[in-house]
Formats: sequence, structure tokens, C-alpha cells
Amino acid sequence: MDTAKLVSHIREKQSFLCIGLDTDLEKIPGFLKKTKDPIFAFNKAIIDATHHLCVAYKPNTAFYEAYGSQGWASLERTIAYLNENYPDHFTIADAKRGDIGNTSGRYAKAFFEVMDFDAVTVAPYMGRDSVEPFLDFEGKHVILLALTSNPGAFDFQTLPSPEDDLYLEVLRKSRTYRNAHQLMYVIGATKASYLKKVREIIPDGFLLIPGVGAQGGSLAEVCAYGLTGEAGLLVNSSRGIIYASRGTDFAAAAAQRAEELQRQMAEILKNKGD
Amino acid sequence: MDTAKLVSHIREKQSFLCIGLDTDLEKIPGFLKKTKDPIFAFNKAIIDATHHLCVAYKPNTAFYEAYGSQGWASLERTIAYLNENYPDHFTIADAKRGDIGNTSGRYAKAFFEVMDFDAVTVAPYMGRDSVEPFLDFEGKHVILLALTSNPGAFDFQTLPSPEDDLYLEVLRKSRTYRNAHQLMYVIGATKASYLKKVREIIPDGFLLIPGVGAQGGSLAEVCAYGLTGEAGLLVNSSRGIIYASRGTDFAAAAAQRAEELQRQMAEILKNKGD
Repeated sequence: MDTAKLVSHIREKQSFLCIGLDTDLEKIPGFLKKTKDPIFAFNKAIIDATHHLCVAYKPNTAFYEAYGSQGWASLERTIAYLNENYPDHFTIADAKRGDIGNTSGRYAKAFFEVMDFDAVTVAPYMGRDSVEPFLDFEGKHVILLALTSNPGAFDFQTLPSPEDDLYLEVLRKSRTYRNAHQLMYVIGATKASYLKKVREIIPDGFLLIPGVGAQGGSLAEVCAYGLTGEAGLLVNSSRGIIYASRGTDFAAAAAQRAEELQRQMAEILKNKGD
Repeated sequence: MDTAKLVSHIREKQSFLCIGLDTDLEKIPGFLKKTKDPIFAFNKAIIDATHHLCVAYKPNTAFYEAYGSQGWASLERTIAYLNENYPDHFTIADAKRGDIGNTSGRYAKAFFEVMDFDAVTVAPYMGRDSVEPFLDFEGKHVILLALTSNPGAFDFQTLPSPEDDLYLEVLRKSRTYRNAHQLMYVIGATKASYLKKVREIIPDGFLLIPGVGAQGGSLAEVCAYGLTGEAGLLVNSSRGIIYASRGTDFAAAAAQRAEELQRQMAEILKNKGD
């Protein structure tokens, strides 16, 4: 999907919400566990109940791998269902992959060809040739980790290097990668004030913002620093939406939480004059 | 597996060879493709032909994910076969994972419980709480990326930070992580001279050395700088061994290449007085 389509979807929905499908068998309603593929059944219900409120879905691969090849099959069913029924939605494999060139190429094949996601999250530590094989897929996107939402982000990401802090160096250097226009970046919402510096280097590109909700980030603060004329943000919420209820009303409860966020986003976009 | 057992296995075999199972359907002998699970059939043949020459096997997850849930099932069969038939061998999931705490915990479950690998490679970019959930598994190991074997390693890993270059900072800071005695490190063979600095910080710990063979690293040079009294090295070769022949003799050809490396290792260990 090209970013123009994503931008027009954001305008139409008045939402830049991404819903994280971090689906954990121990947290889904008990009655679903009797179905053949409880993880897919849960995802399908959440997607059907929330698709009109969001523009993107982001399954995190860890939650599927934890159930082995069966979990991986649930992930395949989920992305197939999304692409078949909601092709306008931007789909992100939150996989945080990255390896030497020929190996990153295999990961790219897994997520862009076998499963047909629009984007995959990639860790920058191994540098240029670990990222570019993903960028060779036209119309697909790499969402590169820059500044993450967890406490450990301060271990290395904010270390000063000769030119700038490491996460800013990641932003700057990656702009020279092949097909860099297909790059987006992860910037944790728990560090909203850093967005000002990020926007000096990436004035227009899309940022994926995790950490709103369960991890404590503020939507208003993120938007104050990060919003561009074309939105330029995808704000993700996972646990805060999908586990809003563990009863039979779980999908409706998730939709309610998603709607709260969507309304705040519509208000912010309106005030921004979009 | 505890490291004492690995050390004693190295002494017994006079080998610190790790064989990388980067199994690619396009590179395996044609006749295997008629079997039900060609990837597993290939791995089984390679393992049966080489187990007496090496002490570790390292499947790279990218090559399995590229075939979707079926590929993941081939990986499950491979690790089950290794654990059942060659329980003395150290098994490494080369997955280069790492995410926020609760998510890294799911990856750890996937590789240490569901599949029962002895070790997993982890990327350090997200810091302490992305690594420690893996270290909570007793008797299991994290092999943390420090200095990798690819050209992109010089993008960020060797950037000077206030105390030291980033990869040395990763080594130093990770020593303070919970259960740090379960840490090992990836140090690319293509940068053997850096091993001297690495050994100043990690005098005894195990290093996994990729890049010997296809990527051009030198075994002698790696050992000159990296070998300790208890070996302290696992030297990996993947493509150089497993694709030695594409004919019906592929397993024997792989064993021959593995034996060449094992003999060099035995000679090096002998000269070291082990």
C-alpha cells in the first residue's frame, strides 16, 4: 500500500489508530477456547468490531510464535482475513527482525510475499544491509526501531555518539538507505518530548507510536509534537483495546475503547484544521 | 544445558564447530523435494552425517519462516529430532529477537519451552528489559548481538559513545543484567582483530563466531584472539558446509567440509595445550 492511500484512509475515518493484535490465549474469553482456532476467532471478532474505527492492524509475532506452528497458522489466517475483507487497512507485522543481507531477504519474503503484510518492524542494530532487503519490495514498508517505549530504550538508544544520540543517528543514516521513501519509524509514546527532535530529521514521514494506553503514553502530547499536515502518525494501542473485557461482550468492549481513541483523534485532526 | 557440559563436549570432540542450518528449498538437492517435508529431510541427513564433528547446531529462523507455518513445523521437527537423538549438542535458535518485556517473554517461551532450544540470539537495541525475560529461563542462554559479521555492522555498532564503542558498551552493560552468567555474544569472524578488545571485557564467556567460510572470516585469526582455556568459542559455518554438494552425496560432502574444520580446530586446541 502506498502512503497516499493510508493518508486518504486516515482522512476518511478521522482516525490514525492502529490496533495491536497481541493475542494471548491466557487472556481471551474462555468460551472462545472451545473453537478450533481460538486465536484467529478472537482476532476476527476484534477486527469485525473495530475496523470502522482504525486504519491499521499490528499483530506482534511473539504472541503467535509462543504457540508454535499452530500459532503461526493463526497469524496466516489473520492476515489473509484482513487482506480479503478489509484491504484498505494498513497491516504491520510487528516482528522486529533484522539479519545479514541474504537472511533479511528471507524474512522479507516471509512477511511480504508469503503473508502479504504492508509493513514489518525492523531492528537497526545490524545496519544498512540488514534493512535494505526489506526495502526492495515495492509498495511495502520498513518500520525501523528508533526510540522504543520500554525502560531499556535508555540503555543504548539515547547514548550520545559523535554526531548525535544513537536514535537520531539511526534516523539520519537510514535516510540514505536504498528506497528510503518506504521507511517509517517506531517512536515510543512514553517519550513524546523527543518527537520534536525526531521531526527535525523526519519532517513528513510516518511514525508508529506504541505505548499509548497500557504503557502510559499521552495521545495529546504525542500529537502536539508529532502530527504533520498528512497526519504522519499511526498511534497503536494493543492491550488497552483488545482486553477491555474478558466476557462475551469482549468485541463490543474493544470497539468502545477504540471509539474513545478515535473520537479523540477526530477532535485533534479537526483542531489541526485537517 | 550448562556451559560445563558444552566445554566437556568440546574437549571430547576436539571441536568447537557449530553448523548453521540455513536450509533453503532452492538450494537443496532436487530429489529431496519429493519427500513430505524436504527441509526436515535435508536437516536430518546433514545432522546424521555431521554430529560427530560438531558440538552445536544453529537453525536460522528466517529460512523456516520463509515457508510460513509449514516451515515453522519443519523447524519444530528439526529441534525435536536433535533433542531426541543428539541431546549432547548445544542448540541455538538464530532468531535475533528482542522486544518490550512482556513480548520478549513470549519469544522466550516459543524458543525455550515450546521448542526447547538451549540458546537464542537476541538483538540488544531495546536494552535490559528486552533481554532479561530470556535470561529468566534456567539453563538457557542468550547470545547477544555485539559485533556482527556483515558490512552494516559499521553503521552503528562501532560508533563511539562516551565510554566506548557501542558494541563494547553492549558487552559492558549486559554484564549487569539479571542472570548475566547465561549470556554469550555474537562476534563476527570478519572482524577478528576486534576480539582482543572483546576479551578484555569478556575474558571467559562464550562467543558465537559467524562469518567463517562463505563470509570470509579466518579461523586461525579468530582463535588467536578469541580462544580461552575452556575454548570459549563456537565457530559457525552454514552455507560452506551444508551446500558443499547439491547431488545425492550432499550429506557426505557436508561431513567432509565439517571434518576439514574439525581437524583444524583439533590442531588449534592441541597447540593451545588443551
